[in-house]
Amino acid sequence: MGGSLAMALYQGGLCREVVGVARRPETVQQALALQAVHYATTQLSEALCGADIVVLATPVRSIIRHIQQLSTMTLPPCLLLDLGSTKQAIVRAMEALPAHVQPLGSHPMCGKEVSGLAAADPNLYRDAPWVLVPLARTSEASLDLARALIQAVGARPLVLDAARHDWLVAAISHLPYVLATALVLVVAQLGRNDAMVWQLAASGFRDTSRLAGSDVEMMLDILMTNRTAVEEVLTHALSQLGHLTGLLARGEEEPLRALLTRARTLRTMYANMLPDRDLSTS
Amino acid sequence: MGGSLAMALYQGGLCREVVGVARRPETVQQALALQAVHYATTQLSEALCGADIVVLATPVRSIIRHIQQLSTMTLPPCLLLDLGSTKQAIVRAMEALPAHVQPLGSHPMCGKEVSGLAAADPNLYRDAPWVLVPLARTSEASLDLARALIQAVGARPLVLDAARHDWLVAAISHLPYVLATALVLVVAQLGRNDAMVWQLAASGFRDTSRLAGSDVEMMLDILMTNRTAVEEVLTHALSQLGHLTGLLARGEEEPLRALLTRARTLRTMYANMLPDRDLSTS
Repeated sequence: MGGSLAMALYQGGLCREVVGVARRPETVQQALALQAVHYATTQLSEALCGADIVVLATPVRSIIRHIQQLSTMTLPPCLLLDLGSTKQAIVRAMEALPAHVQPLGSHPMCGKEVSGLAAADPNLYRDAPWVLVPLARTSEASLDLARALIQAVGARPLVLDAARHDWLVAAISHLPYVLATALVLVVAQLGRNDAMVWQLAASGFRDTSRLAGSDVEMMLDILMTNRTAVEEVLTHALSQLGHLTGLLARGEEEPLRALLTRARTLRTMYANMLPDRDLSTS
Repeated sequence: MGGSLAMALYQGGLCREVVGVARRPETVQQALALQAVHYATTQLSEALCGADIVVLATPVRSIIRHIQQLSTMTLPPCLLLDLGSTKQAIVRAMEALPAHVQPLGSHPMCGKEVSGLAAADPNLYRDAPWVLVPLARTSEASLDLARALIQAVGARPLVLDAARHDWLVAAISHLPYVLATALVLVVAQLGRNDAMVWQLAASGFRDTSRLAGSDVEMMLDILMTNRTAVEEVLTHALSQLGHLTGLLARGEEEPLRALLTRARTLRTMYANMLPDRDLSTS
């Protein structure tokens, strides 16, 4: 996410200077080689010097640790934005930042299951919704600056409060991940005595299981910082799945047909809402 | 499926004559317009006349009705193949065919969630596994003829018995469909008071829910003719999902990390097995 944003900003000539910060020297070299930044460093304090906008683009709990660390450092007056996938825990941590820093929670809705700088794509944000979660102390000017940044890389800013965001993504992002993971684990369990299962797995399995390939630490941070909402959504899913299983077990074809038809209608309605770039694989 | 096979055979010049049979005159016209067949008709008896290979390409229970209907008609000596997605009920029905007909159950593993002749694609079968389920009465020569047909359209024939096939597809095809359906129903239920849910749904939801857009009558036939296996697999899925939910609810991070890591390793292993054409969207 961070690499893609840096690339979009740098390659599009959208910022005076794009500076990357990474823990490992190899990542610094890679960012330069991939033309993702003007300059990169392993030194956070060096990168912060003179920054107008600071973007935290790591897994959620690492973002929270960075915010705590930044709160103890000398910071320039800046807009501090994060790209984390859950928002309540992050905006809570942002409250502790010094008064001259303008914090703003944010979440671009365009992740891939692949991670790392090698997978960076400057077009990742095009047409994607990008949620903004302002704090009470976030000024209208800071919000406008963030909106300008987001629109510059082709995304669509959308202001939500943190709790509503976390609840929505529990349903449309974290639930699909857990379902994909359960699917892979069940197929592996059933396939323990029949390796043919993997050979036969076709596009249906491929798509439904894709999210199970997501980065584990990233997803664990998401689940652990959104436990209440994810648990509630999973409880609904268990109930719905149990209901479908019961209808099938009892051979109750008519109510089963009604539910499958309803799901198909909703999925078709959703597919028709997708921007053109997504239609080919909808 | 039938349209794609006809197209591959006709456009590739792989058969002396490809004849389509459809219930509706419009489909007959469409098949000719799309260059899927040499000739098409709504009259089954006319199409059967002189046929060497008869392919039944409808939903499973409709295939079974066709087999019953064919058993009462004057049939040429031919190979009778079906493309149905479950096999036990179909090969059982095939037992009643006259002795001069060579029946063979089959299932190409390359469906799309879109159906109908307009979605036909002559390259659909390329590199796809195509399961063959011979009956006791199926001759080696008939099996070889089917293998030749399958290889001619680029697929990979694979002989399995009916029960094993049905159990495998319950896990890798029918379970993903039911999970996708449950996902869409849960998101719709949770989103009843917040339409934002559909606007935020990104690629993760899109891919995981894709199968819920499948043709309902086709899927209902599949589920109703494979109830025992699907129910068993769904029971495993409910148990796995309940386990993941429990770990999350209790905040048991280490066992959760272990399961997510295991699922990711398996999904990566599977992605590495996919033919090249699939890698871009794995």
